[in-house]
Amino acid sequence: MPEFRRDPVIGRWVIIDPSRNFKKVMHSSEEEYPKDTSKCPFCHGNENMTRPEILAYSNNPHRHPNSKDWTVRVIPNNKPVLEIEGSLKRRGDGMYDKMDAVGAHEIIIDTPQHHQRFGDVNEKQYENVFSAIIERIKDLRKDSRLEYILAFKNYGISANAVFEHPYSQLIAMPIVPKRVREEIAGAENYFKYRERCVFCDIIANEIAAETRIVQENDDFIALCPYASRYPFETWILPKGHHPDFDSISQKELKNLSKMTKSVFEKLYSVLDNPSWSALIHTSPLKEKNLQYYHWHIEVIPKLTKTAGFEWGTGLYVNPVLPEEAAKYLREA
Amino acid sequence: MPEFRRDPVIGRWVIIDPSRNFKKVMHSSEEEYPKDTSKCPFCHGNENMTRPEILAYSNNPHRHPNSKDWTVRVIPNNKPVLEIEGSLKRRGDGMYDKMDAVGAHEIIIDTPQHHQRFGDVNEKQYENVFSAIIERIKDLRKDSRLEYILAFKNYGISANAVFEHPYSQLIAMPIVPKRVREEIAGAENYFKYRERCVFCDIIANEIAAETRIVQENDDFIALCPYASRYPFETWILPKGHHPDFDSISQKELKNLSKMTKSVFEKLYSVLDNPSWSALIHTSPLKEKNLQYYHWHIEVIPKLTKTAGFEWGTGLYVNPVLPEEAAKYLREA
Repeated sequence: MPEFRRDPVIGRWVIIDPSRNFKKVMHSSEEEYPKDTSKCPFCHGNENMTRPEILAYSNNPHRHPNSKDWTVRVIPNNKPVLEIEGSLKRRGDGMYDKMDAVGAHEIIIDTPQHHQRFGDVNEKQYENVFSAIIERIKDLRKDSRLEYILAFKNYGISANAVFEHPYSQLIAMPIVPKRVREEIAGAENYFKYRERCVFCDIIANEIAAETRIVQENDDFIALCPYASRYPFETWILPKGHHPDFDSISQKELKNLSKMTKSVFEKLYSVLDNPSWSALIHTSPLKEKNLQYYHWHIEVIPKLTKTAGFEWGTGLYVNPVLPEEAAKYLREA
Repeated sequence: MPEFRRDPVIGRWVIIDPSRNFKKVMHSSEEEYPKDTSKCPFCHGNENMTRPEILAYSNNPHRHPNSKDWTVRVIPNNKPVLEIEGSLKRRGDGMYDKMDAVGAHEIIIDTPQHHQRFGDVNEKQYENVFSAIIERIKDLRKDSRLEYILAFKNYGISANAVFEHPYSQLIAMPIVPKRVREEIAGAENYFKYRERCVFCDIIANEIAAETRIVQENDDFIALCPYASRYPFETWILPKGHHPDFDSISQKELKNLSKMTKSVFEKLYSVLDNPSWSALIHTSPLKEKNLQYYHWHIEVIPKLTKTAGFEWGTGLYVNPVLPEEAAKYLREA
């Protein structure tokens, strides 16, 4: 069973999951996706190759669960990094702390089409994927052991996507992770000093500066952040102050889907079929309606590698000016 | 000119360096090292292909600077991420902060032999490399603008090593980087509570537990840390309480070289020619003799990839039990 272990210096939790493929780890090499897609567990007709679905959307009102004809399908991950069973009790282990890796790890199959890129997905399908994520978050909120839910997507071998078929993931965990804690602490500090949300201020600053904006609509703005860690890093933020992603309105959901589709069309038009990751940062489950936090999506094309310098310092070297990246994307 | 930009939420500094290869970034693909090694700027006889050397060790007492016959050679990086010229003044930029990327970026050519792996380097050569790093740190300490020096090494394409010829790097910077600040803050907290150094306690705990020890000698211990982020992550620590790497004694230097050679022999024997990074964490330049910090080396084979989950949470999923990794290495 995987377990959380806590680093005694920094206090960072690490998930040790020895059920993963040890042999593959020891003999590292770039793999390729299987050429034969008939055995893809995420394609229509192969529903029995996965664990039973948790949720599915379909245009066919008479569809049976776990049959084909779905547009989005949510399943439990076969090899979850966190599992529903287990105890939340923290235990000592010599001078260290550990706990069971309790939580949930679900897969959202974004589309039935194996080779569909996110730049080619239609708006309605984006809406379906976001709706499925929201529905799952609302359901998982009922489990009082959970503190945070991260929805994210990896695409391409360099971004660690195990399957070629487009899929997103949702990991619900019993701690608020370090990176989210840092964002919230920073935003709270800013709020204490200015009595304003730092993300709302960033949006106002960027609208005035114009140079880092990728696109805007009524409810959302896409921009390359001032201190981008990665080339072409792009954030999508609601223009209004909204701390909780799952409180989004139907109108906003439509505008978010429009914006996300447009951002991916632009990224695919400027870059050469990049691997990428995207993730939704939202408030911890038990901290609703925060005045100082503001949910947002971070899209990160995987174009550079991190190694000794980044690991040793936590600093990033970004070879592309965010202003230049934004210009490319804006004009795409 | 590259610049430091500060993220307004987390407060993390990022180095934006648009002088790097933009085209290569936009069309990402795995490259290979050039097959023709006669043009390698780090090989004997090609000394004129680099900027003039800062330091070199040689067995030939009559050697002229920038001629061949060296065993270790230190040169300024041709494309430094930080440069000696510039102002340290922090400036506002709209709501943001930035400053010139002032500092130093040097290359230590570890060996004249192009294809020599770190597992095959002899003890004396390790000593030379460490001595060169120490000599450079002592010299750079004179520049009062500098706050921290990270010495590190990337090996292999997956670990971002630009050259195939083995080399280390040293980046001196005008800030104490985030990751080091976190370690020091964590260690200070621990010290406040226990009045003991957390690293000294880790060493005592690991010697008692035995399961995560890779090797020991009089002055050093190598171990796989309890909350390892990466498979086969290995730390080398001085057994005595030593906060500053460059205060090492000659006897300790010899034992460090023995230990490092042995750890790399083991890593190469267990893993399949991995890419890897190694880095030295030591105290900030202006915080000498800290009671609560303890310099150490972190060796990280590049076997797994980080993507959306790690970026979104700061958590790591490690598929190999540290106890199992240590056992493999111990028995190698």
